Amino acid sequence: MTGGAKPRSKAARGRGKGDQAIMALDLPMAALSPTMEAYFSKCREKIGFIPNVLLAYAHNSAKLEAFVGFYNELMLGPSGLSKLEREMIAVVVSAENRCFYCLTAHGAAVRALSGDPQLGEMLAMNYRVATLSPRWRSMLDFAAQLTREAYVGEAERDALRRAGFSEADIWDIAAVAAFFNQSNRMAAAVDMRPNDAYHTQAR
Amino acid sequence: MTGGAKPRSKAARGRGKGDQAIMALDLPMAALSPTMEAYFSKCREKIGFIPNVLLAYAHNSAKLEAFVGFYNELMLGPSGLSKLEREMIAVVVSAENRCFYCLTAHGAAVRALSGDPQLGEMLAMNYRVATLSPRWRSMLDFAAQLTREAYVGEAERDALRRAGFSEADIWDIAAVAAFFNQSNRMAAAVDMRPNDAYHTQAR
Amino acid sequence: MTGGAKPRSKAARGRGKGDQAIMALDLPMAALSPTMEAYFSKCREKIGFIPNVLLAYAHNSAKLEAFVGFYNELMLGPSGLSKLEREMIAVVVSAENRCFYCLTAHGAAVRALSGDPQLGEMLAMNYRVATLSPRWRSMLDFAAQLTREAYVGEAERDALRRAGFSEADIWDIAAVAAFFNQSNRMAAAVDMRPNDAYHTQAR
Amino acid sequence: MTGGAKPRSKAARGRGKGDQAIMALDLPMAALSPTMEAYFSKCREKIGFIPNVLLAYAHNSAKLEAFVGFYNELMLGPSGLSKLEREMIAVVVSAENRCFYCLTAHGAAVRALSGDPQLGEMLAMNYRVATLSPRWRSMLDFAAQLTREAYVGEAERDALRRAGFSEADIWDIAAVAAFFNQSNRMAAAVDMRPNDAYHTQAR
Amino acid sequence: MTGGAKPRSKAARGRGKGDQAIMALDLPMAALSPTMEAYFSKCREKIGFIPNVLLAYAHNSAKLEAFVGFYNELMLGPSGLSKLEREMIAVVVSAENRCFYCLTAHGAAVRALSGDPQLGEMLAMNYRVATLSPRWRSMLDFAAQLTREAYVGEAERDALRRAGFSEADIWDIAAVAAFFNQSNRMAAAVDMRPNDAYHTQAR
Amino acid sequence: MTGGAKPRSKAARGRGKGDQAIMALDLPMAALSPTMEAYFSKCREKIGFIPNVLLAYAHNSAKLEAFVGFYNELMLGPSGLSKLEREMIAVVVSAENRCFYCLTAHGAAVRALSGDPQLGEMLAMNYRVATLSPRWRSMLDFAAQLTREAYVGEAERDALRRAGFSEADIWDIAAVAAFFNQSNRMAAAVDMRPNDAYHTQAR
Repeated sequence: MTGGAKPRSKAARGRGKGDQAIMALDLPMAALSPTMEAYFSKCREKIGFIPNVLLAYAHNSAKLEAFVGFYNELMLGPSGLSKLEREMIAVVVSAENRCFYCLTAHGAAVRALSGDPQLGEMLAMNYRVATLSPRWRSMLDFAAQLTREAYVGEAERDALRRAGFSEADIWDIAAVAAFFNQSNRMAAAVDMRPNDAYHTQAR
Repeated sequence: MTGGAKPRSKAARGRGKGDQAIMALDLPMAALSPTMEAYFSKCREKIGFIPNVLLAYAHNSAKLEAFVGFYNELMLGPSGLSKLEREMIAVVVSAENRCFYCLTAHGAAVRALSGDPQLGEMLAMNYRVATLSPRWRSMLDFAAQLTREAYVGEAERDALRRAGFSEADIWDIAAVAAFFNQSNRMAAAVDMRPNDAYHTQAR
Repeated sequence: MTGGAKPRSKAARGRGKGDQAIMALDLPMAALSPTMEAYFSKCREKIGFIPNVLLAYAHNSAKLEAFVGFYNELMLGPSGLSKLEREMIAVVVSAENRCFYCLTAHGAAVRALSGDPQLGEMLAMNYRVATLSPRWRSMLDFAAQLTREAYVGEAERDALRRAGFSEADIWDIAAVAAFFNQSNRMAAAVDMRPNDAYHTQAR
Repeated sequence: MTGGAKPRSKAARGRGKGDQAIMALDLPMAALSPTMEAYFSKCREKIGFIPNVLLAYAHNSAKLEAFVGFYNELMLGPSGLSKLEREMIAVVVSAENRCFYCLTAHGAAVRALSGDPQLGEMLAMNYRVATLSPRWRSMLDFAAQLTREAYVGEAERDALRRAGFSEADIWDIAAVAAFFNQSNRMAAAVDMRPNDAYHTQAR
Repeated sequence: MTGGAKPRSKAARGRGKGDQAIMALDLPMAALSPTMEAYFSKCREKIGFIPNVLLAYAHNSAKLEAFVGFYNELMLGPSGLSKLEREMIAVVVSAENRCFYCLTAHGAAVRALSGDPQLGEMLAMNYRVATLSPRWRSMLDFAAQLTREAYVGEAERDALRRAGFSEADIWDIAAVAAFFNQSNRMAAAVDMRPNDAYHTQAR
Repeated sequence: MTGGAKPRSKAARGRGKGDQAIMALDLPMAALSPTMEAYFSKCREKIGFIPNVLLAYAHNSAKLEAFVGFYNELMLGPSGLSKLEREMIAVVVSAENRCFYCLTAHGAAVRALSGDPQLGEMLAMNYRVATLSPRWRSMLDFAAQLTREAYVGEAERDALRRAGFSEADIWDIAAVAAFFNQSNRMAAAVDMRPNDAYHTQAR
């Protein structure tokens, strides 16, 4: 054997079985507010584990709560975009930014919600190879350009309108794409690690 | 006169005196929750106007509240970074992304908080021309690289540690830089316009 | 349901069960030389299917034979690099170029040869997040830079020498990285589709 | 206080009150030709100071004189472009190149000549957010592309013709845009510092 | 004299008169197969020298033979593209990648086959300045985009079809462009040096 | 024959034998000042032709004279840089910008002044393949970075100082590199064509 794994930074925090590091910063978990304790319990019940992004934010209960509030409104709140569509945008943005954490976690979500594992793979690798409806293609083109150039103009907004999106839908497409430009950078900056469970979900 | 202004999209929403458009999406202002009504009143009292970013989010009271919660925790909550330092990161990220709204609003904040208008100008134009302490230079280099490449590694985290930043400080530098990668894209996507007041503040 | 699949170009050639298109060019399969007929039989026996890249080249038996000769010498011939290492380079180059075909086929190979599915995922998404031995890190850095910049200098060759690679090993690292810059572009240019089997292999 | 200013290179030359450095090269001011002496006197009379770019060139009277001759013909000589239009091109090119000196000096000129301080800010931050006449938009698009790609073709020249520009106007747009690609790099290469006066002009 | 040449790496292999290095790797020439011996003799007879790319591959007879087989089928085999057209693609790809070896060797081929030395120069410097037939322009645009972006879509394939290229022609354009993305990187990775003869050919 | 030349824009101005176009703008030659008439005569005597860049500027005698004054001071005036060194910078900058006119004219100058035609070719294709003295390498690295990024810092200036360049030399390196960033864009913007004579000079 010629290669092999190098141990990660000693500073990295381990949690849960196997004491696996979840990020490169050495920040102990804080005492959580009752609301957040309850939320963590709900995670364990519903999906069987606490997503590592939440454990990473949990070094500060106030930051965790603000993040959870913002995230859940965006990805699970009422919207003209389906949950699958929001996850598709998340994956395409994360592919542009090559974010290991988000591609793993949200790639699993696209595979699960779409029932089409290859769609998840295509969006994570290069969404332009997928044969998509005009609605989906314009939505993902907008998200990808906004990610790459940090700029879109009236022509790009009009392309979404022509594809049938409402003004509120355009806000939501922008908001999801913008949010993952934040999350991708947060994950990279602290070297966040996805839970193992995602890798085999919905293959 | 050979040039001149073209009227903006009819869809754009106007609010306040002069019915000036605040963004390119035609989204009527929603009924706000009492908490948000109170927050808007406090803005008018304290700074004399409501920042247009809040008016833009106000098409949906729940989204507005989630945004305000996340933003205030990040920029005004307890942190090893001073408020000026957080604003400096905001400006440098917004300069990388060429965001008119954020450069205008947060450039004014840097001028005001630092008492050094030229520092604000330098960060908005090209932070590398400013003569900065190693602490500030490493903080802004990290933010700029994270913005451009959406990636940093252990070497970049170690540079912050050597400059004296704690693990929690590194989280906060990352969090502010990541957040403005979101805000810059949100502002671009809906063509958000800064309040006129910012332009002349603290010159 | 708001989205959905659009049928691919009528010109695309279908082969095998379900008449699935393997590329966007409409090129009928040629009569193959006896050597290539035998090679196709061996593929069916050994791995249960004929990789679509070979079916794509099979519109011209001479081109197919030249490709197979070049490919097999490079990826399966004697070398100081293990087969896994050659597949790792293939995946990292294909990730830089965002090649759906090669990431799918060679990502499966890395998962299978390494027995470490997450290694395959990391290389396909962003190899810099993987904790690697100096040998592997230098090998993949060299391949990634050669891909992105189409240039490396003596400093980059010396980094490989310091990591223990021989002159012949350096040739082979370069040759595999260069080859996949060809294959990625060939796959993109004709919109080559990977066989379904790869997606679920070695998860 | 956590940050603070670092003194600039000892080599940097100071001139005028406060002995403030005007660039990073240590080049003493030369004896000027009578023409240049007269020109400097005229500057002091008319605008109250000598622009630092001229003081920087003044280490060599012949170079200074050639520069002044070329600059004044270009920016002040007869042209189908107004002086404001030439300054607008200067600012947009300098924004692409993130040139602190030129954005400061020529941003002030756009604010003053246009009587529209926000126009100056928009061009310095991201000209694409400004609502402009087709004439101005095409002029600035041409300048920005020429800056970024160092290439334009007949399609780009034809866009200027359709916007009403003559062949001589196209030459002048190109000449101003090309010139500031020179000036921006000269300012960066020697770390030229704008006179303080510009920062507060025409706000 | 202020500058001057620095001797190249001692490791570099010399061959032929003057013992000039042909690449930066120190790999002794292998015993060649009879087929390759015969091929080298034919080179010496027909063009008076052995191209250095072949001498570089000659450290391994099997690799050399696989390369020669692949190359000759591609560049000299039957095709709807003329030999000049294949060489034009080689030069344009090599210009995008700034490959000294391939620009020198294939630039000479374009000058010789076209009888138009300036065409060779233009393609080596910036093919967009050449006034070309729609057939040639679309062929070179496709090759340049495939090189730069490692991606083309159905729109780009359709542009070739409209210019009169058959499905097999499109394969061949893609194959030549893809191949030189390999060769350029191979040449850069080992610092391959072109034979002196090319520089003065067909000027 | 499958390809062929397309006639250039009718607007293009022709001059001299064969009525060959020298640029894409239709600007008639102006009456020249006596100084410029004399300068053109000197060109014809000394080098046998008038460089097309001068004929292009000659649509306006004042612009021509300002350009000639600036150019001759820079490239032929007193300097710590030899004329060859200034031409080498011109070629490396023009290669970064892929400027056909300047690569042709100044490539010929490097071949002639150095007596080393291959040096001219290497600088025009990729200067990093040339084996250069530390003085030349640092000079060209500075020029190339200034061209690509429009930014250099104190570290880059110090690299020149360590290579033995004086403060005045650094100014001159910057000035030549900056100037060709102007000239390259001027040539591209008006599609300037080099005189045929350059192509065969000093091969």
